[in-house]
Amino acid sequence: MRAGSVQAGEGTAPADLIAFAHRLADFARPLARHYFRTELPVEAKADASPVTVADRAIEALLRAEIRARYPEHGILGEEEGGDFERPLTWVIDPIDGTKSFITGMPLFGTLIALVSGGRPILSVIDIPALGERWSGTGDAAWFGDTPARTSDRALADARLFATSPDIFEGPDAEAFASLSRAVGLRRFGGDCYSYGLLASGHCDLVVEAGLQVYDVMALVPVVQGAGGVLTDWEGCPLTPDFDGRVVAAANAGLHAEALAHLRARP
Amino acid sequence: MRAGSVQAGEGTAPADLIAFAHRLADFARPLARHYFRTELPVEAKADASPVTVADRAIEALLRAEIRARYPEHGILGEEEGGDFERPLTWVIDPIDGTKSFITGMPLFGTLIALVSGGRPILSVIDIPALGERWSGTGDAAWFGDTPARTSDRALADARLFATSPDIFEGPDAEAFASLSRAVGLRRFGGDCYSYGLLASGHCDLVVEAGLQVYDVMALVPVVQGAGGVLTDWEGCPLTPDFDGRVVAAANAGLHAEALAHLRARP
Repeated sequence: MRAGSVQAGEGTAPADLIAFAHRLADFARPLARHYFRTELPVEAKADASPVTVADRAIEALLRAEIRARYPEHGILGEEEGGDFERPLTWVIDPIDGTKSFITGMPLFGTLIALVSGGRPILSVIDIPALGERWSGTGDAAWFGDTPARTSDRALADARLFATSPDIFEGPDAEAFASLSRAVGLRRFGGDCYSYGLLASGHCDLVVEAGLQVYDVMALVPVVQGAGGVLTDWEGCPLTPDFDGRVVAAANAGLHAEALAHLRARP
Repeated sequence: MRAGSVQAGEGTAPADLIAFAHRLADFARPLARHYFRTELPVEAKADASPVTVADRAIEALLRAEIRARYPEHGILGEEEGGDFERPLTWVIDPIDGTKSFITGMPLFGTLIALVSGGRPILSVIDIPALGERWSGTGDAAWFGDTPARTSDRALADARLFATSPDIFEGPDAEAFASLSRAVGLRRFGGDCYSYGLLASGHCDLVVEAGLQVYDVMALVPVVQGAGGVLTDWEGCPLTPDFDGRVVAAANAGLHAEALAHLRARP
């Protein structure tokens, strides 16, 4: 705890910040559950991704909480935008997996990350409909209150997840197909939930493309805190200007094996 | 109630049989939850589909319950086989979605159907990890205790689900791609859960291939009881010797529109 903090949760020590991230997720969860499986008008955004009143209401709530508590921090959210000009920035995806959300699939999540110098230093992946939550600091990760730990599986036994084959175009699709042939099984669907399952050792690889900065920042402290590796397809750490391609692996050996397939794309 | 039944739940009236199907699901649920997200050896069956001790233990439990209660009924299960030679046959898939089950995805289900003269007359789709359940009689369907009702969406707005693109081969893949281009959105992953979401109006089309009789019999009374239509890709009702292809639609108009794409395959 920071010396001089007047009450629990008031400061900017790591424990205060992670506690605040949990509090944000606690606020968002009932709102997400309130809207889930109700009839909501669905709009298509400029990039054709769907958005509902639920996305906007949750982001507005979280922004108000952050502004009240840490007015000096920046905010970047999927719905209202933002930037990384402040030393510390909260990155929010109010509903990751909007297609899941609007089709009654309970796997959508609320993503909350705190980014310092372009690097996510702590995060929460909350699954409102299931009441499940992963959190991480890069050095450690938890599923609820239990430490989360990735698997030690190698490529031939690995369980590979991606949200949809539709996210891969051209050479990326070929690279993904090559990797798919080398693993034990592959499965589609999941959005952020897949990365939580990886952190808990249930699946071993998640490979995606076309992601945005608000989709990925919260994944890093959880996956890495659980012992995994999460980079772009070149093996570089994710920064705010990453190219949308992500590979998460349960361990360093598996990550190297997967990269060999992804880098070899035509 | 059948005249002469000595206590509630003893007879073969429809209400007794559906109550017994629920009781079977009640027995299976804690066993499925017990094994879920534990380290289980996974074997590949002759058809390369994975199976674990959980599949076998649940089927054995359900078979014992059925034999004790209705010794005159037949049983057909995914793990131990069976046939339709008796007038009434219970069709069981202890864990539908074994790939989900072994990767920590909570969408797997236990399927229980009662088949008379090749026609499924009542069923339960239980989702043990989520504590959710759909049931149906062909005339009515429920999500928990609430009546389930399909949507009235047309093709251009429809939400199309399939477990994976990998289930479609050759011309089937082309037909599925054609249908995919005509709908509002498509999503992968889900197994039996997708049919439950369709019964509740959250998605509108589920199209699959390569299914077995124990995968589909429990889907029919739920989907049709909720107002939907479930047939093979020629529009014929599913019988025990169906060809593995299934199309479930939220309403008759949507079913006809989907069939036009599926029948036009090269």
